[in-house]
Amino acid sequence: MTSTESPVRLAMPDAPGQPTPSPDLARLYRDFENELLVPLWTEIGDLMPTSPRPDAAAHVWRWARLLEIARRSGDLVPVGRGGERRAIALANPGLGGMPYATPTLWAAIQYLNPHEDAPVHRHTQHAFRFVVEGEGVWTVVDGDAVAMRRGDLLLTPGWRFHGHHNQSEEPMAWLDGLDIPFVHAMGSAFFELGPDVVANRATPARSYAERLWAHPGLRPVSQSGPVASSPVMAYRWEHTDAALSAQLDLEAEGQPGVVAPGHAAVRFSNPTTGGDVLPTIRAEMHRVRSRAATVTRREVGSSVWQVFDGTGRVRLGGREWRVERGDLVAVPSWVPFTVTAESDLDLFRFSDTPIFEGLHAHRVQEGDE
Amino acid sequence: MTSTESPVRLAMPDAPGQPTPSPDLARLYRDFENELLVPLWTEIGDLMPTSPRPDAAAHVWRWARLLEIARRSGDLVPVGRGGERRAIALANPGLGGMPYATPTLWAAIQYLNPHEDAPVHRHTQHAFRFVVEGEGVWTVVDGDAVAMRRGDLLLTPGWRFHGHHNQSEEPMAWLDGLDIPFVHAMGSAFFELGPDVVANRATPARSYAERLWAHPGLRPVSQSGPVASSPVMAYRWEHTDAALSAQLDLEAEGQPGVVAPGHAAVRFSNPTTGGDVLPTIRAEMHRVRSRAATVTRREVGSSVWQVFDGTGRVRLGGREWRVERGDLVAVPSWVPFTVTAESDLDLFRFSDTPIFEGLHAHRVQEGDE
Amino acid sequence: MTSTESPVRLAMPDAPGQPTPSPDLARLYRDFENELLVPLWTEIGDLMPTSPRPDAAAHVWRWARLLEIARRSGDLVPVGRGGERRAIALANPGLGGMPYATPTLWAAIQYLNPHEDAPVHRHTQHAFRFVVEGEGVWTVVDGDAVAMRRGDLLLTPGWRFHGHHNQSEEPMAWLDGLDIPFVHAMGSAFFELGPDVVANRATPARSYAERLWAHPGLRPVSQSGPVASSPVMAYRWEHTDAALSAQLDLEAEGQPGVVAPGHAAVRFSNPTTGGDVLPTIRAEMHRVRSRAATVTRREVGSSVWQVFDGTGRVRLGGREWRVERGDLVAVPSWVPFTVTAESDLDLFRFSDTPIFEGLHAHRVQEGDE
Amino acid sequence: MTSTESPVRLAMPDAPGQPTPSPDLARLYRDFENELLVPLWTEIGDLMPTSPRPDAAAHVWRWARLLEIARRSGDLVPVGRGGERRAIALANPGLGGMPYATPTLWAAIQYLNPHEDAPVHRHTQHAFRFVVEGEGVWTVVDGDAVAMRRGDLLLTPGWRFHGHHNQSEEPMAWLDGLDIPFVHAMGSAFFELGPDVVANRATPARSYAERLWAHPGLRPVSQSGPVASSPVMAYRWEHTDAALSAQLDLEAEGQPGVVAPGHAAVRFSNPTTGGDVLPTIRAEMHRVRSRAATVTRREVGSSVWQVFDGTGRVRLGGREWRVERGDLVAVPSWVPFTVTAESDLDLFRFSDTPIFEGLHAHRVQEGDE
Repeated sequence: MTSTESPVRLAMPDAPGQPTPSPDLARLYRDFENELLVPLWTEIGDLMPTSPRPDAAAHVWRWARLLEIARRSGDLVPVGRGGERRAIALANPGLGGMPYATPTLWAAIQYLNPHEDAPVHRHTQHAFRFVVEGEGVWTVVDGDAVAMRRGDLLLTPGWRFHGHHNQSEEPMAWLDGLDIPFVHAMGSAFFELGPDVVANRATPARSYAERLWAHPGLRPVSQSGPVASSPVMAYRWEHTDAALSAQLDLEAEGQPGVVAPGHAAVRFSNPTTGGDVLPTIRAEMHRVRSRAATVTRREVGSSVWQVFDGTGRVRLGGREWRVERGDLVAVPSWVPFTVTAESDLDLFRFSDTPIFEGLHAHRVQEGDE
Repeated sequence: MTSTESPVRLAMPDAPGQPTPSPDLARLYRDFENELLVPLWTEIGDLMPTSPRPDAAAHVWRWARLLEIARRSGDLVPVGRGGERRAIALANPGLGGMPYATPTLWAAIQYLNPHEDAPVHRHTQHAFRFVVEGEGVWTVVDGDAVAMRRGDLLLTPGWRFHGHHNQSEEPMAWLDGLDIPFVHAMGSAFFELGPDVVANRATPARSYAERLWAHPGLRPVSQSGPVASSPVMAYRWEHTDAALSAQLDLEAEGQPGVVAPGHAAVRFSNPTTGGDVLPTIRAEMHRVRSRAATVTRREVGSSVWQVFDGTGRVRLGGREWRVERGDLVAVPSWVPFTVTAESDLDLFRFSDTPIFEGLHAHRVQEGDE
Repeated sequence: MTSTESPVRLAMPDAPGQPTPSPDLARLYRDFENELLVPLWTEIGDLMPTSPRPDAAAHVWRWARLLEIARRSGDLVPVGRGGERRAIALANPGLGGMPYATPTLWAAIQYLNPHEDAPVHRHTQHAFRFVVEGEGVWTVVDGDAVAMRRGDLLLTPGWRFHGHHNQSEEPMAWLDGLDIPFVHAMGSAFFELGPDVVANRATPARSYAERLWAHPGLRPVSQSGPVASSPVMAYRWEHTDAALSAQLDLEAEGQPGVVAPGHAAVRFSNPTTGGDVLPTIRAEMHRVRSRAATVTRREVGSSVWQVFDGTGRVRLGGREWRVERGDLVAVPSWVPFTVTAESDLDLFRFSDTPIFEGLHAHRVQEGDE
Repeated sequence: MTSTESPVRLAMPDAPGQPTPSPDLARLYRDFENELLVPLWTEIGDLMPTSPRPDAAAHVWRWARLLEIARRSGDLVPVGRGGERRAIALANPGLGGMPYATPTLWAAIQYLNPHEDAPVHRHTQHAFRFVVEGEGVWTVVDGDAVAMRRGDLLLTPGWRFHGHHNQSEEPMAWLDGLDIPFVHAMGSAFFELGPDVVANRATPARSYAERLWAHPGLRPVSQSGPVASSPVMAYRWEHTDAALSAQLDLEAEGQPGVVAPGHAAVRFSNPTTGGDVLPTIRAEMHRVRSRAATVTRREVGSSVWQVFDGTGRVRLGGREWRVERGDLVAVPSWVPFTVTAESDLDLFRFSDTPIFEGLHAHRVQEGDE
């Protein structure tokens, strides 16, 4: 490989402690390039900063705008084999135009017209759907038809065949969350096509999975042992809402339960392990009482928040946005994050925290800096 | 220690392969006794059988009879400090009169008159209550008042202060399950007295614990990490019943879920680990459809079953009993067990299986021998 | 079952808080007996003491005496099929003559004459051998010939076929440790005969197992994943001695490592988990510098110590014994234990601690009461 | 944000199933760009390939060349505060000039002149050193001086202060391995400076850590419980060599142990867990007998191999290189890899496998495709 071919481009550093440029030094740097080598001393500041300096930026996408664009896509762009999904991904402004909400997380609005199918496939990427409004679509996961309704979290763990079909007369849009950027960076993506149409056309209110698993503290004896992804598959809003209300009621009675004053939160969990719903993705729902604020918090890893109901203000490392139903917020690693509620405010959150916890690399800092 | 004091008593074995008795041999056996020694070759058949030969016997206690005796105890024997509980334990006929249902498990009927208190204490033994009928008592665990109603499973994990009070005009009886025999054998019992009267006189329909924890697949973010005993504390019949019905409905629809044809079963579980509710005790509810039978099964370790509803026949290693509501069945280690339902039959079961699973010592054999 | 047959024998308690005897009360107590019931209020003091009150006693057996008796057994009693082993077990004076060193642990001296075989069998009980003196026997575990030499710990995890053969011109005695009492109490004993003679007559210095596994921090790539019992199989004295010496050297250099001043200790461990060598048995070697003493310690569960070298004094809950090479000490649950070294003192220890740790039931108290 | 500012650049796809370009469609695509959105249907082939299509390339760097360049760097470039290390990283030709051997792994040659110090710092990135030749440098980790000699693997787990000093009259070069690319992508990098000079100037043959921990199957009782990174810290060549030889000897005796015929391998492991030495990095040493070849294998995740001794040929997805002492090979995800030994061949390997195993995302395929 010659110098002109090498992707390595080096400038000799002009910094205290670095040698005076000389022909020998110039030759050395050219040889670094030729041999596909990069000296640490020119890069250490970027590679090994004092604390995380993510490329990703804090950013807010507006649901109203996303929905309008999704509707136009619904008019103009078909869904089917090849493109696979009418999903439009958030592209973090710091990540060079890649369809990545954060370095690890994909977030997209998916849109299905009345009586449309999204064809069946499977992939190693883990996925979920969260419904901020609407209903009428069933996602069919390994043959199990899972209704999608406002407030529900629906799982599609990796390597399960799944398609969606809209059985109603209305279009439906929802949030897709996946670990596509992480899997892409790690080189662990596998993908396989299934049938073009979703075979199971049933429209049950509850899936087989939740009928078997969504009972508090109870598990079927026929299915023992831990599994890597939650078998619950569908977390219904009625339960989430009740759990959040209960925490605020307990607070009013002087009992523990809330995360902080006026701030209730539940984590969607895998009942076979007590851990996260998916190996790479944490999902939570937060409720902040009107006029309350969360404790400012920063943590290693990134997350995406979506306003489910109410209005409030999000502060992210010096910037602030007013947010309302459906708005999506990308939170990069180690950026301080605070939410203040203008009304009672419900927020869905997903993050890559399980990756860090599993590697003993998670760090959290709470309170003002 | 002289021979007359030693607890060791040996007979010289008269078996093929054993030496002819002689004065030297007799002197050797006397020295074994004197020195507190026992040769393996005289004991190996008992100590190391081909398969488990438990001292405990299969046995059935009748609820009607227990209840009648408990009522008379309620008339004659006070409850209070010192005796601590009006609890009457099953004494397995093979265990020498000890108050042990099996070598590891304690099972008792506890009885509380109207407006009586059982005083507060705590102990390292793990406990639960299961209610086959009645209501009106609250068990208060570390200050949290837990209502007891038909079909409910209520936990008292080890080392939590707890007392009970009957706030109603009716007496109430229920099943207490503990690991007293195991803890006694292992020498790990600690006990501490609390107040004589239960301070919290509230009678809420739901405890703080279940308001925080009894939501399917959801856990409070404020309480992360695994804990050794389930934080759910109260497993309500409405959920258990719904989970069992769902399994039989799924079976009728051709979907998996039941343990075997006509046999649904749920395990009460710890949502922070996916494991058993208590470190030493497994608890399950089984439902057998009318005229169906369970697969004959034997396993290492012991269990106690209580009929919750319906009638049926229990076969235990060659013996058979007809059972009805409230009847209690002790199942020793490795004894084949089958239930046949005469009507729709619900059974509560608890066992010491977690001990064996944790030690990689669990064995199960299913089907006829 | 009539009253005369029932094993339950109750005396009406004559204690504060108990009712005055009456014909009705007498009838109630007779019905308890008849129905195989035992009231808690008559038993709670024994069953649920304030802290452990083990039946087992602290006791010391003298190696010189054990060896002399073992030799006479070697002269008088053959070893072979049926009796299986010429093993003579310690019978704790508090355990009613049962061949139990403690409620969970079996400890025996095993003796094999020159050119004798102990026939092949397997059982679910976990076993180890520890060699206080002598050599010349190979224990063959699933076909792998494991030499036994002074200071070595040799494992026979449950359900592995094993036999021993003495290939030398000298008899050999060693310590056998098993979980026989625990397995017997739990009803989990299985046993199977193998060949009468040990097929593998090889006498290698090192077993296959240790050639594959006994390298510090290295494991064969061909055998990944955790296994329940340590695959090392043989822990050689040279390594144990070096590890203990290193700790005392580090102490002399002001570095951490020892358990307490003058007290080094290593735990034999399973390199695939970092945990104990056997699911139910912990094994350790301790070295106490001449004139040093261990910190007084009591803990839940029981243990057996054997002096490997040197002399010292053992204090056990108020009693004290002078001990020397080979002497065996039974330590019941929660009895304070201290060793003081008269010379440099090496002690082997095994205990049932893994059972308690796995069940979150372990408690330790250090220092004077 | 206007279109000209947005990093999103989209071309309307011209593919079967895609709509005919139109003004409305063009406006939609411009709005995608304006709103920082990317449709899945234009990207799915790249993001979600049928099987991994890593950007990283298979590549070989020659040790002779690296060493020559490192020596010139030693002459021309000082080492000290700011640049921190005279380390020259491999830059994979597929990764755009970044100093990444693979998407997750950093590999560099580090070079220290006689009597030079590399100053003290710490970082969350996990690191190790592997020595292909030379000696004379001590790496001091949290005050513990660890000698570096040919064949040794030395650990620097994350967040431990460490510096190096060359106490000899010769320069020394070695391989540094870290998870810098992974940590950078994940935004979890923290870094802190320590003293400019290494305080501990001692030159012991063995570190405190290995004196305490590097005994086969033995762990200090004073340090119980699992820790995330291996406490062994130094894996010496004499042990590694012996373990590899033993596997080949066992193979010659017909015993199991090798990975495949003529192919021995050991994994450096954490004795407190049985798992990998570092949370993100697996390290192994392989020995292939002269004229033997490894089974062709591909797996998810990437690795770097370094020839430790001998010569052979490496085949990587259709390309082949002849390799000799010190040569370094980057193996991208899912590329089939085979080594054929021309002489007895020893290879060091490190990989990111623990990340995938922890997330249940590891896949391996062995044998020819």
